[in-house]
Amino acid sequence: MDYQSLSLEIADHVAVVTLNKPEKINAMGADFWDECGEVFRQINDDPDVRVAIIASTGKHFTAGIDLGYLQSLLPPQDADPARAMDMMRRKIKYLQGAFEAIDNCRVPVLAAVQGGCFGAGVDLVSACDMRYASADAYFIIQEVNIGMVADVGTLQRMPRQIPDGLMRELAYTGRKYHADEAFATGYVTHVAEDHEALLAHVKQIAATIAAKSPLAVSGTKVMLNHTRDHGLQEGLDYIASWNAGMLSFQDVMKGATAALTKSTAAFDDLM
Amino acid sequence: MDYQSLSLEIADHVAVVTLNKPEKINAMGADFWDECGEVFRQINDDPDVRVAIIASTGKHFTAGIDLGYLQSLLPPQDADPARAMDMMRRKIKYLQGAFEAIDNCRVPVLAAVQGGCFGAGVDLVSACDMRYASADAYFIIQEVNIGMVADVGTLQRMPRQIPDGLMRELAYTGRKYHADEAFATGYVTHVAEDHEALLAHVKQIAATIAAKSPLAVSGTKVMLNHTRDHGLQEGLDYIASWNAGMLSFQDVMKGATAALTKSTAAFDDLM
Amino acid sequence: MDYQSLSLEIADHVAVVTLNKPEKINAMGADFWDECGEVFRQINDDPDVRVAIIASTGKHFTAGIDLGYLQSLLPPQDADPARAMDMMRRKIKYLQGAFEAIDNCRVPVLAAVQGGCFGAGVDLVSACDMRYASADAYFIIQEVNIGMVADVGTLQRMPRQIPDGLMRELAYTGRKYHADEAFATGYVTHVAEDHEALLAHVKQIAATIAAKSPLAVSGTKVMLNHTRDHGLQEGLDYIASWNAGMLSFQDVMKGATAALTKSTAAFDDLM
Amino acid sequence: MDYQSLSLEIADHVAVVTLNKPEKINAMGADFWDECGEVFRQINDDPDVRVAIIASTGKHFTAGIDLGYLQSLLPPQDADPARAMDMMRRKIKYLQGAFEAIDNCRVPVLAAVQGGCFGAGVDLVSACDMRYASADAYFIIQEVNIGMVADVGTLQRMPRQIPDGLMRELAYTGRKYHADEAFATGYVTHVAEDHEALLAHVKQIAATIAAKSPLAVSGTKVMLNHTRDHGLQEGLDYIASWNAGMLSFQDVMKGATAALTKSTAAFDDLM
Amino acid sequence: MDYQSLSLEIADHVAVVTLNKPEKINAMGADFWDECGEVFRQINDDPDVRVAIIASTGKHFTAGIDLGYLQSLLPPQDADPARAMDMMRRKIKYLQGAFEAIDNCRVPVLAAVQGGCFGAGVDLVSACDMRYASADAYFIIQEVNIGMVADVGTLQRMPRQIPDGLMRELAYTGRKYHADEAFATGYVTHVAEDHEALLAHVKQIAATIAAKSPLAVSGTKVMLNHTRDHGLQEGLDYIASWNAGMLSFQDVMKGATAALTKSTAAFDDLM
Amino acid sequence: MDYQSLSLEIADHVAVVTLNKPEKINAMGADFWDECGEVFRQINDDPDVRVAIIASTGKHFTAGIDLGYLQSLLPPQDADPARAMDMMRRKIKYLQGAFEAIDNCRVPVLAAVQGGCFGAGVDLVSACDMRYASADAYFIIQEVNIGMVADVGTLQRMPRQIPDGLMRELAYTGRKYHADEAFATGYVTHVAEDHEALLAHVKQIAATIAAKSPLAVSGTKVMLNHTRDHGLQEGLDYIASWNAGMLSFQDVMKGATAALTKSTAAFDDLM
Repeated sequence: MDYQSLSLEIADHVAVVTLNKPEKINAMGADFWDECGEVFRQINDDPDVRVAIIASTGKHFTAGIDLGYLQSLLPPQDADPARAMDMMRRKIKYLQGAFEAIDNCRVPVLAAVQGGCFGAGVDLVSACDMRYASADAYFIIQEVNIGMVADVGTLQRMPRQIPDGLMRELAYTGRKYHADEAFATGYVTHVAEDHEALLAHVKQIAATIAAKSPLAVSGTKVMLNHTRDHGLQEGLDYIASWNAGMLSFQDVMKGATAALTKSTAAFDDLM
Repeated sequence: MDYQSLSLEIADHVAVVTLNKPEKINAMGADFWDECGEVFRQINDDPDVRVAIIASTGKHFTAGIDLGYLQSLLPPQDADPARAMDMMRRKIKYLQGAFEAIDNCRVPVLAAVQGGCFGAGVDLVSACDMRYASADAYFIIQEVNIGMVADVGTLQRMPRQIPDGLMRELAYTGRKYHADEAFATGYVTHVAEDHEALLAHVKQIAATIAAKSPLAVSGTKVMLNHTRDHGLQEGLDYIASWNAGMLSFQDVMKGATAALTKSTAAFDDLM
Repeated sequence: MDYQSLSLEIADHVAVVTLNKPEKINAMGADFWDECGEVFRQINDDPDVRVAIIASTGKHFTAGIDLGYLQSLLPPQDADPARAMDMMRRKIKYLQGAFEAIDNCRVPVLAAVQGGCFGAGVDLVSACDMRYASADAYFIIQEVNIGMVADVGTLQRMPRQIPDGLMRELAYTGRKYHADEAFATGYVTHVAEDHEALLAHVKQIAATIAAKSPLAVSGTKVMLNHTRDHGLQEGLDYIASWNAGMLSFQDVMKGATAALTKSTAAFDDLM
Repeated sequence: MDYQSLSLEIADHVAVVTLNKPEKINAMGADFWDECGEVFRQINDDPDVRVAIIASTGKHFTAGIDLGYLQSLLPPQDADPARAMDMMRRKIKYLQGAFEAIDNCRVPVLAAVQGGCFGAGVDLVSACDMRYASADAYFIIQEVNIGMVADVGTLQRMPRQIPDGLMRELAYTGRKYHADEAFATGYVTHVAEDHEALLAHVKQIAATIAAKSPLAVSGTKVMLNHTRDHGLQEGLDYIASWNAGMLSFQDVMKGATAALTKSTAAFDDLM
Repeated sequence: MDYQSLSLEIADHVAVVTLNKPEKINAMGADFWDECGEVFRQINDDPDVRVAIIASTGKHFTAGIDLGYLQSLLPPQDADPARAMDMMRRKIKYLQGAFEAIDNCRVPVLAAVQGGCFGAGVDLVSACDMRYASADAYFIIQEVNIGMVADVGTLQRMPRQIPDGLMRELAYTGRKYHADEAFATGYVTHVAEDHEALLAHVKQIAATIAAKSPLAVSGTKVMLNHTRDHGLQEGLDYIASWNAGMLSFQDVMKGATAALTKSTAAFDDLM
Repeated sequence: MDYQSLSLEIADHVAVVTLNKPEKINAMGADFWDECGEVFRQINDDPDVRVAIIASTGKHFTAGIDLGYLQSLLPPQDADPARAMDMMRRKIKYLQGAFEAIDNCRVPVLAAVQGGCFGAGVDLVSACDMRYASADAYFIIQEVNIGMVADVGTLQRMPRQIPDGLMRELAYTGRKYHADEAFATGYVTHVAEDHEALLAHVKQIAATIAAKSPLAVSGTKVMLNHTRDHGLQEGLDYIASWNAGMLSFQDVMKGATAALTKSTAAFDDLM
């Protein structure tokens, strides 16, 4: 795969996806929307990968959707309005798909955010499992500032991640949400001093996850995503059926032995 | 409209509803339960309004339901118990309707709470989008203290606003929940020094919201309310269908231009 | 009832369940899994009990599931794999049932945690209404460390109790989650200096709850559990139907009188 | 109440609503949409009424929505399209409300259909509890024939009343669905020879229902509507909570006695 | 086990439960409500059983709940009404449990109905997988005739088994629903000439099911019950996770070979 | 596109997909599972297509999944069982995807079935909008006969298409379900004399649908699929939001005019 809007590196079971158009503040153009879904489907299908990081370059994480690209999505003026809207609906679903690939990715995805993270950038990191930030980071639900309702996931995912009252204030006012407030209210899980310390911290977390049984980690992600959308009884029933078949005696043996002997177990990749 | 238990002022796209029976600690009697639903339906139908505030007068926000009124709801002693209960059920639904009008109101509703907020007062402010408090404010789930299960919304809305363990402690013990604890645990979004500073802060937030596209703000409220009750896929599908038709190119143009030129856009009212 | 893995004491409407195998770090063996469900069903059926506490003895709350017992659950090597899995599924559901008895118990259940709380211990305390801890307490989602997906409730209940990003970090890394962090992020509701202070605090909370109308408290638990799994409209409708019949005029009269006279009401037990 | 598009007669606990513009094939104009909701709310609030019939006059049941009225709903040409759509959405919800009043009506509503029943007429009778027809009756999902998606309830209610494959054929082709086919496939519950015999049959069914306890009948409707939208466990729990309070010992005593003595019980109206 | 209100015979993998109080028209008294749950839990836990039949003796299948027993459930006159209702709710849930044991039973349960099947009898057979009837059979939703809302499952299960309009007519009028109409509308799957022919037919169906892989049959029941309460995507995901572990290669090999060679496979019992 | 296991012809807005391996009884091998999803995604994306037919060649519609292909899906003997199952789960989801493409296809899909339709063939036609059959057609849920639980959609879709009791008899016994019984119980919507008459009938239905506004037809399919999985209120709200934007005034004008003038409207394709 050859990506334009981002780069992908895989080492030691960890995939690192990096937005690499700092000269455009990593604005999300046509390339990005194709490649974001693509890269996380590639990661999903690579049995060697056990965890992923999404990071960025330059002063800001991302400026959000590229405004020129946004304009190109608009239907021609002379179209039948209803047909135009039908097409619009399919385009929005296409954009959503880019971040659903993160949500559906078999492995945990960790976001490392520096500087500003605007609009679709918030949709992006809300689709990740965890968010980590440097002290200068901030988030803005930019959509309300440009006169529209956010439509690629922020309003569906973020209310499950932060207090409801705060969520509404951020979504209605479009104000800055700084790293320290984001940490205090649960949106980011750790704040590092600067970008370098941030990447080091996130890689350390990723290494810890990569050392676990990949079957246990991906099963855990399936269950956490399931809980988000289902009642308690359904969740309990689902995990019972899942573990009936997908509990690996081999891994538990290794894991329990390692726990007792304070050693490190080496787990096999998935098939 | 001529209201008894509250007043309504509308200026600069902001509606301010104020409880105005401080001599009765703003206890909620027959007038209130009629008028609360009425006033928020009026606000909902007024295209000039873009955001609402609910505030109060006197030392305390509200004493909760008026005990005399509560008594008047009880069925006559000699009624067939089952028929009496059937009537009781309709009365509870009538009471709930007063706060559902807040929930369903097209515009965000901000609560500004000073002093004590008891029983049905907690049900009321939990139905608002955001809660702001002065330093002397506190909340009490009074229902358990008077031997009943809260039935006008606290137990349905507040568990989605604060940590589950804390919610249960408050609901089972009926203890005071002070402004600072409420801020630290996400129930209120800002604590101001006193009532005056509180009103100033809330009006500032309201002014910020009133300057946004009313279509974007009300669409955002629809989505946030939808997320509260639906799974992720349903939410993504809903916003895609919504924005296919209700994305205003006119507003986005204004908004994007204003963002680029650091100026302020003037958005039209709804029809 | 004669319990081996735990003890039960009932006094002043408060049931105290205590894990009493400190010499085995209160590891959960065959006895425990039978008795945990049993004891909470006994509590549920005893009209004298109004609140329950689950505490433990020794340095640590519990080591989690006994590894020998875990091994005994595994099917024989030579079984048809699909039949073995079918049996495995029924066994997991049996284990889940032990903690569902806590969830379904009519009265609030308060967990008091000292020292380490590992694996199935986290599943256990997540099924309680509130969690309280001593300063030395910590929680570990041990399952991922031994190569398996947690399957007795942690992944279904805990995500509704703490921020989503943190939940995922804990579940993927299996790291220690200390009392102070657990307090700051909503998992525990109070941290006491030591085990003694912890028990005193929890008993004080329990006494407060025991003084309320047991009908109001158990109805409140039913509603809070219902809200966890249902949409807003369903919740409002459910409480309206519930209170139509189960609002006790006798209790409200006592409760309101006590509130007005600043005295203490004495509520009757359930039938 | 003084209705223009329909008449209301109440006798022997039975309300009969009759569409009375046969000269316009009972097309549904502005009057109708106001009055349909109004009349069923009146019926709902009249404790003397225990069952309702909706019938019509002339050769056909109804031509569906009045096309002139439909046109009057369209937004002005020069409106901002997004604001126009926002208004459109509220108007559709207003139309839906007319038939939701039937669905939410406390008493069973029986539709008696003669001749053609077009478009919004199908939405109307699908919102009734039961449908009865004369031999010349037929139904047409007219919306697809005039280039639109049905939006006042047919596509939400009728799929729960007839086989899925047939539903789709009718909705995609807009073909005639004759009384005999509608009976064989469950949409209508009885076919009478002609309009007169139809009204006699429906009144007989209504009289039977009016002789039952109104509390039992309206509780049954609540449960059947609940089952339509909820899972099994939720339904069982709901009826248990409901009957705990709303089972009338007085009525059961009367009913059981009448059953044993083969006499007729006289039940009181609701309060 | 020694049952009073019913008998249990197990032969050739088929369990036959027979109501055996024809002198009391098999009215359901205290014994029955205990034993019905008990017998189906016994069947569930017996790996030798692969299918169950519930049949009856005498002219009628059952008269429904015993009226004396119903009376014994009523709370004492002088109890606090709310506490009495709380107890009532628990008793209704206990009654529901008897039929939930049928629903949750690992094996398909076939009902064979002769003569009248009244009230709770309809709740009972609606909880079975399939219903078969002799020509003289009929069903009556008797609850509405004695002034109450059915509360042990008819209103939750039967609407998923027959057309909605018919369901409502039967539930509101309490009229007879004869075997031939019940066959034409899907409630019963076959009508036999008389009781003897009925039992022969049902045993033939049972023998066919008993010859299948018990793992395949019980997995199919789990999925059909799941579909009743869940959306399409959830169902597809559930069966994928289920079959990942619980597809028996041994059974498929046997089954496919038998299919190709037109012979009969012999499947092992569950563990 | 060049398909091996099927052919695709498009004419007059109608796409006809034909299974074309009669020499193998149209057994579904590796080619088929790739191509089925592919062809319906192609149809979905072709704005010229307004309706699709899936037909077959030879004596039988399909033998179901190719047994050799089924065997190739099994994991290697020496794999870690849990990793093997994890892979198995992904393979089942891949198979399901082939039929989800039918469900998600923008246009109605009509199945025309002759002769036997076995196993995965039933999963296939259950994913279609309507099913039509020749008199010699029959359906067999073959999975239970070869010792497995059906896992590509039959148990999730068919219970929403036929009576519950019948569904269970067919799924547990694996018996033949003949065209006439399938018509009487709602699974097929029309039975034709022979294959030729069947194709003529289905093409006539398809032509009728192709003459409608494609926007109205695809919107109707979206709503009918939505109703299958959602409650009434959600459905009403969804169609209101949908039609706010996607109601084509141009199409309604054409449609209404044609209806009044008894002429035929010509609707534009989608964009």
